[in-house]
Amino acid sequence: MSSPIKHFLNTQDWSVAELNATLDEAEAFKRSKLGKQLEGRSIALLFFNPSMRTRTSFELGAWQLGGKAIVLQPGKDAWPVEFDFGTVMDGEAEEHIAEVARVLSRYVDMIGVRAFPKFVDWSVDRQDKVLNGFAKYATVPVINMETITHPCQELAHAMALRERFGKDLRGRKYVLTWTYHPKALNTAVANSALTIATRLGMDVTLLCPTPDYVLDERYMDWAEQNVAESGGALTVSHDIESAYKDADVVYAKSWGALPYFGNWADEKPIRDQYKHFIVDSTKMALTRNGVFSHCLPLRRNIKATDEVMDSPACIAIDEAENRLHVQKAVMSALMRAQHGL
Amino acid sequence: MSSPIKHFLNTQDWSVAELNATLDEAEAFKRSKLGKQLEGRSIALLFFNPSMRTRTSFELGAWQLGGKAIVLQPGKDAWPVEFDFGTVMDGEAEEHIAEVARVLSRYVDMIGVRAFPKFVDWSVDRQDKVLNGFAKYATVPVINMETITHPCQELAHAMALRERFGKDLRGRKYVLTWTYHPKALNTAVANSALTIATRLGMDVTLLCPTPDYVLDERYMDWAEQNVAESGGALTVSHDIESAYKDADVVYAKSWGALPYFGNWADEKPIRDQYKHFIVDSTKMALTRNGVFSHCLPLRRNIKATDEVMDSPACIAIDEAENRLHVQKAVMSALMRAQHGL
Amino acid sequence: MSSPIKHFLNTQDWSVAELNATLDEAEAFKRSKLGKQLEGRSIALLFFNPSMRTRTSFELGAWQLGGKAIVLQPGKDAWPVEFDFGTVMDGEAEEHIAEVARVLSRYVDMIGVRAFPKFVDWSVDRQDKVLNGFAKYATVPVINMETITHPCQELAHAMALRERFGKDLRGRKYVLTWTYHPKALNTAVANSALTIATRLGMDVTLLCPTPDYVLDERYMDWAEQNVAESGGALTVSHDIESAYKDADVVYAKSWGALPYFGNWADEKPIRDQYKHFIVDSTKMALTRNGVFSHCLPLRRNIKATDEVMDSPACIAIDEAENRLHVQKAVMSALMRAQHGL
Repeated sequence: MSSPIKHFLNTQDWSVAELNATLDEAEAFKRSKLGKQLEGRSIALLFFNPSMRTRTSFELGAWQLGGKAIVLQPGKDAWPVEFDFGTVMDGEAEEHIAEVARVLSRYVDMIGVRAFPKFVDWSVDRQDKVLNGFAKYATVPVINMETITHPCQELAHAMALRERFGKDLRGRKYVLTWTYHPKALNTAVANSALTIATRLGMDVTLLCPTPDYVLDERYMDWAEQNVAESGGALTVSHDIESAYKDADVVYAKSWGALPYFGNWADEKPIRDQYKHFIVDSTKMALTRNGVFSHCLPLRRNIKATDEVMDSPACIAIDEAENRLHVQKAVMSALMRAQHGL
Repeated sequence: MSSPIKHFLNTQDWSVAELNATLDEAEAFKRSKLGKQLEGRSIALLFFNPSMRTRTSFELGAWQLGGKAIVLQPGKDAWPVEFDFGTVMDGEAEEHIAEVARVLSRYVDMIGVRAFPKFVDWSVDRQDKVLNGFAKYATVPVINMETITHPCQELAHAMALRERFGKDLRGRKYVLTWTYHPKALNTAVANSALTIATRLGMDVTLLCPTPDYVLDERYMDWAEQNVAESGGALTVSHDIESAYKDADVVYAKSWGALPYFGNWADEKPIRDQYKHFIVDSTKMALTRNGVFSHCLPLRRNIKATDEVMDSPACIAIDEAENRLHVQKAVMSALMRAQHGL
Repeated sequence: MSSPIKHFLNTQDWSVAELNATLDEAEAFKRSKLGKQLEGRSIALLFFNPSMRTRTSFELGAWQLGGKAIVLQPGKDAWPVEFDFGTVMDGEAEEHIAEVARVLSRYVDMIGVRAFPKFVDWSVDRQDKVLNGFAKYATVPVINMETITHPCQELAHAMALRERFGKDLRGRKYVLTWTYHPKALNTAVANSALTIATRLGMDVTLLCPTPDYVLDERYMDWAEQNVAESGGALTVSHDIESAYKDADVVYAKSWGALPYFGNWADEKPIRDQYKHFIVDSTKMALTRNGVFSHCLPLRRNIKATDEVMDSPACIAIDEAENRLHVQKAVMSALMRAQHGL
């Protein structure tokens, strides 16, 4: 059963032309923030996990275009929700996604969903059940506000790169580097960075400590497909020096190694050996006057030094700002598609 | 001391003509969602308990009519409140309802209150102290967003029935059936269904496992009064087959038995014997092509089967949608009354 | 490095002329609540601690002037934040104030901050790190929504006094009285009351049980400076009767004794000896037909009796209402300053 509804679940579902048009509209919103694109429209923002930037930028963005965001936190100030189908609901969940999605679709014009992995079993988490449950049952467009990928971040990141390098990013040397963090984190932003960087035709190096830190095959496959289509390149490297050499872009992110998913106690001593992956000025000096970014939140002097964060090369604040602009463009595009405009 | 302020605490306080006018206005809002009825007006929504539909529909409804809802969660992101009068406040509560209600009344034009029973002592909970405390001290209209009754749900339910059967519901066979749930739940929606169904002149059967599951005498009395005035009927039944026979409407709800209120461990083995009260296709086949509804949230395959929930007979999603429309009509009516329009 | 941005961190940073102009504008907003002063503008409200009045009045006030408030609760539905500089962030905090403040400044036009002391070490808390961190890094105006002072409350209080006594409050006898509370509370409102009362030239008595309850020297110094400039007076008293004698204003607040800061178990038996500081009718009878107020929340029959709270002398509800009006005036003034209007 194919749905006629246009969602924003992953950038991979949208054409490069659509993505570029969205980035163009975002740049227009950056120049002029107010509009009527969402007049009378509403969006429910469902946060199964905490948020600052995402929530602020969606709530504000909807308002600046004449719309209204409703913030819901299922399991905190709303009911816990069941996502499996056909179950006898005798556990914690008081309500099924079928009802939640259909009722919300009667109230609002779009539904944003943030649902992080549970970090127990990757074979379960990689099904992205919450997001796909909403996409299956909702009768309005669904937006991924970060699950196991983070496409809104991708667009904000791409926009920040366009601001530095111009619209054509093909051939730029892009390093996605793993960095240390005391806890095992979500691979979402790493998956997304890999996806969008290859999509835009860059020469991408995935730099990580060992083969255990390579990303899920779904996203490695997307990257390979993108390279084939866009004419870019994809290299996996475990050597810091050669990876940074002549880079135009250094994008940092920490994530847990998938083979140890859920067994974090076993991964911890491995991860702790790679604190030197921190982005510092010595590494940045190897680049071709490259820019540095990170999706935020970022632990200073763990993932990147104060010196890098406070340098002119750092575009993380620009990228964060761009979340507002790109999300306004995504919401506007979805409403036009939904209403045949 | 009688207050000149018109509240919406229970449908029983409003005339049938007022209720019908409110339903008519709700139907108009369903056809055309935007308006200026609440322009410049605001409502504080106080949630002492979690909510998804209620919060979304009130917050959105106020906005669609030009108004503003402020969502407060006392005891979570606001102060715990004292509702008893004359006490020396040396316990948990940092503030008295007298101040809360009067201060909020200075800020906003209406106050919505959700406050579930504490499930320890029904003789205390049945006093509905939180709602009545607000109604006593507030100088603006107060709306019941579910306490020990749920009048907003009643109107949404009545509206869904009007959509299926037309405005005159008199004489329709209406079954309010208890269903199983692993926990003892609030009687609010059951009290409310009994109230509105008799008010609208239907032939009402209250189907429950044993006499212990009959509702509080206040609501049984209201139902009797309503029957006397509306020309309907009220029957209590413990026999599933005869209750469902030829029904036009099956409305399901689970609730805890009042004689065991607070002694839920004792009630549990009793309740567990009645899992077969689940609404399923076999039972629905006994009806006169009847409709099924439930207030939501609903545990699938516990209260009703997937088959019933996904059948054309199910109007639960319509009823949920109607919360938005009826609440807009209630807020509009209260503002007209308050401002002499 | 001096910032060109005008913040509202303490009334002491604003001139008396600016404060009076703000109170005048607040009175205009009290007469006519809607306006366009914040059209297209937004404010992030960061609550590190719970709130009812502050949140409602800011959120509503922004809306009534055409603006938008975004409510964030760091550590609850947003990330925990680091406020120290140069640290290796290997603890709880996921993000540094440098990023939080700069990113929020890209989204919104103002930032409101509520951050209570941690009540462990006054030498740390008195640095007001959270507020000052935002003021240091934000590129938009920052408003103190209560930290170790509460300047918004000061303005609301001053406005309520002007409503009773006229604009010239010089020479009025003002008693700031400590009252009992079962827990050791923040000195913020006491610091603020002392500051604004001396600033406005009143004859101020700080009434407290023992010298241990005198306030921090920073605020005692501000009060002395204010007295020197305004021609008022400042007296510290431990004698209830003479303090209340002929007072025009009695302002009550409970707070913990600074020498016992963090050692509350040791302070408790001392504090418990002074329950008779409760504001009651006998004490109020000593005044010159004085008014009573308190910032709320207030525990009835602990800090003040029901009789006092429900008497015509009590202006606490007016003061609470005025929060809405003065904050609208503060936001409007900051936007005019920021945009050179």
